[in-house]
Amino acid sequence: MVNRKKDETKLKIRRLAKDVVRDIDKHSNPSIEIPIRALSNVHFNEKKSIIELGKETQQRYFFNVGQAKKFMQTILIASACDELLDSGKTTSIRDLYYMTKHTIGKSKENTFDDQAESDPIIEDLEVTIDSLREELNLFASNRGAMVGPMKVIDYGINKKGDQIDLARMGSGGWSIPSIVEEDIIEFKDCKAKFILMVEKDAVWRRLNEDGFWKKHNCLLIHGQGMAPRGVRRLLHRLVNDYKLPMYVFVDQDPWGLYIYSVIKQGSINLAYESQRMAVPSAKFIGLSAFDKEKYKLPDNVTIKLNEQDKSRAKQILNYPWFQKKSWQKELKQMLKNGFKLELEALSAKGISFVTDKYLPEKLKNKDWLD
Amino acid sequence: MVNRKKDETKLKIRRLAKDVVRDIDKHSNPSIEIPIRALSNVHFNEKKSIIELGKETQQRYFFNVGQAKKFMQTILIASACDELLDSGKTTSIRDLYYMTKHTIGKSKENTFDDQAESDPIIEDLEVTIDSLREELNLFASNRGAMVGPMKVIDYGINKKGDQIDLARMGSGGWSIPSIVEEDIIEFKDCKAKFILMVEKDAVWRRLNEDGFWKKHNCLLIHGQGMAPRGVRRLLHRLVNDYKLPMYVFVDQDPWGLYIYSVIKQGSINLAYESQRMAVPSAKFIGLSAFDKEKYKLPDNVTIKLNEQDKSRAKQILNYPWFQKKSWQKELKQMLKNGFKLELEALSAKGISFVTDKYLPEKLKNKDWLD
Repeated sequence: MVNRKKDETKLKIRRLAKDVVRDIDKHSNPSIEIPIRALSNVHFNEKKSIIELGKETQQRYFFNVGQAKKFMQTILIASACDELLDSGKTTSIRDLYYMTKHTIGKSKENTFDDQAESDPIIEDLEVTIDSLREELNLFASNRGAMVGPMKVIDYGINKKGDQIDLARMGSGGWSIPSIVEEDIIEFKDCKAKFILMVEKDAVWRRLNEDGFWKKHNCLLIHGQGMAPRGVRRLLHRLVNDYKLPMYVFVDQDPWGLYIYSVIKQGSINLAYESQRMAVPSAKFIGLSAFDKEKYKLPDNVTIKLNEQDKSRAKQILNYPWFQKKSWQKELKQMLKNGFKLELEALSAKGISFVTDKYLPEKLKNKDWLD
Repeated sequence: MVNRKKDETKLKIRRLAKDVVRDIDKHSNPSIEIPIRALSNVHFNEKKSIIELGKETQQRYFFNVGQAKKFMQTILIASACDELLDSGKTTSIRDLYYMTKHTIGKSKENTFDDQAESDPIIEDLEVTIDSLREELNLFASNRGAMVGPMKVIDYGINKKGDQIDLARMGSGGWSIPSIVEEDIIEFKDCKAKFILMVEKDAVWRRLNEDGFWKKHNCLLIHGQGMAPRGVRRLLHRLVNDYKLPMYVFVDQDPWGLYIYSVIKQGSINLAYESQRMAVPSAKFIGLSAFDKEKYKLPDNVTIKLNEQDKSRAKQILNYPWFQKKSWQKELKQMLKNGFKLELEALSAKGISFVTDKYLPEKLKNKDWLD
């Protein structure tokens, strides 16, 4: 178990605090320099193929009527995270809100009135000291599961760590925790040749039950819809540590493509995470807009695109990271088709069609998009 | 691994089919007798303390313009479930919809146009042959996790079964599958003295990280909100097999009480499941409407009841299963307070207040409602 990271994070919080103290000692207006998290400061780094936060920052001052409360809140959250790291405990961002909420002195003013106030302050702190919230011992709700030829050692409860064999997890799989940093989750004995990331848990269970991961020697992961932070961080670590190819398997609709896109290059809203969460090498294995014809799926499993789908697809068509010819062809075909397809639509060809035919063929023919 | 149940379920489906064939042989109008799932046929069984389906049934005929399609759909779903059981595969109810959807002959008529059509037919089949959908190898989306001094053997993937030690699951816990019937999940070496069922996964993780289940020797389970079917069925089996006391720990609001109520006596909508899912011995350990004063929680962690909360609380006040004096007092106090409290509100007294003080005191003083 490596604790280096925890110490690093603590150092960063302390440095923030020291800078403020230095301002006070110098009798100048105490301030914190915070990177701007707005769209204006977000760009697509073509070389790295990820969405990144730019270098623009703003000062948050204590002696400023518009900023004093936010300044206080930032220090309060930083101090609570410092305590969390000291105690070695982790908690939810909702819990942190309750922990830091109190009425100030004899006033009727609360430090926070609502979690909607504390969440952005957490994000401010993350970008300011360049630490993920998971490094601050904070978690979001967890979703997603995993099986495959690999073990993990989980140091979350026992100092000695619980060793978990991901090849012996039965039908449920290993529930992926929200915090999967190196000092909590250690990888061991990975024998997999690639990663298959599935959008939907129902399809994941089909593949697990059919023993797909044993036959093809892969890690089988799902995120129960949009991949949560824990899953994205885990994918990033796995791909970097083991240099594994990774294939993403999502519904044929704009939402499915967005899930793929966030896994691959990060999101606009949380651009500062991309560096440690995005997997630029991720490939899109399906469902493709050309699959209905290729696999002779019946007409009655298609679902008509609605207006929202269409406008979302057109938006995606304009994203800088979907400008490759192959992607433009794919997206235009979806609009031309006028329909979407769910992963489950493959079951119209037989319950295990996805396991026995669809995915093996896609893999064999390298039939994916990059 | 016991396969008796699977054979029983198959027999029940076959019996349904044979009755229809007999009608045909007799040249009479083929029909199926289906218990009525409407409120009119639901009642609270005071002796068993569960919500039950009554004995009223209706015939579904083939030669009836209003019923022919539903008749066809019922047979179609029954036949698909029969195939599922034969193949030993499980699938989602969404997948079953796609598997059974097709265009009829040369018409433009589909067997099902929407999953909203196939789901109620599944429920009809469940009540008609008196089998849970899990016994028909169908699953819903799964949620919820578990840790504690116990092992399970999961026969979902390997015929030999994967043995999983629930005391060595790290921070994530064992992800509870949707289907936990005896032939898939076997319990082993349970050393727990009671079950603590927590509404929220964030609070569950606090308790897991603090080692609550080790210190108090219990099974620690959460359902990520409303307990899903897999969790409810698991609780039912655990309580019946090991005669364990069970405590339910939910938010102090009408929704939390409803979660407790469904776990304890079942729900009105799915009354036919109660017999195999409800846990009438379940106790409510908190948060109680009296806890704010008892544990001196600060004023600013309360949330005002809104109009919807109030009318829901008044509804619950009238449920036959909340007529005990103690419950009436509890519910009236919530309305008198005019506020609700989340489990996380306890963190205002310290991050591990719930682990070190609140729950141990509640258990020691037998401070719960039945």
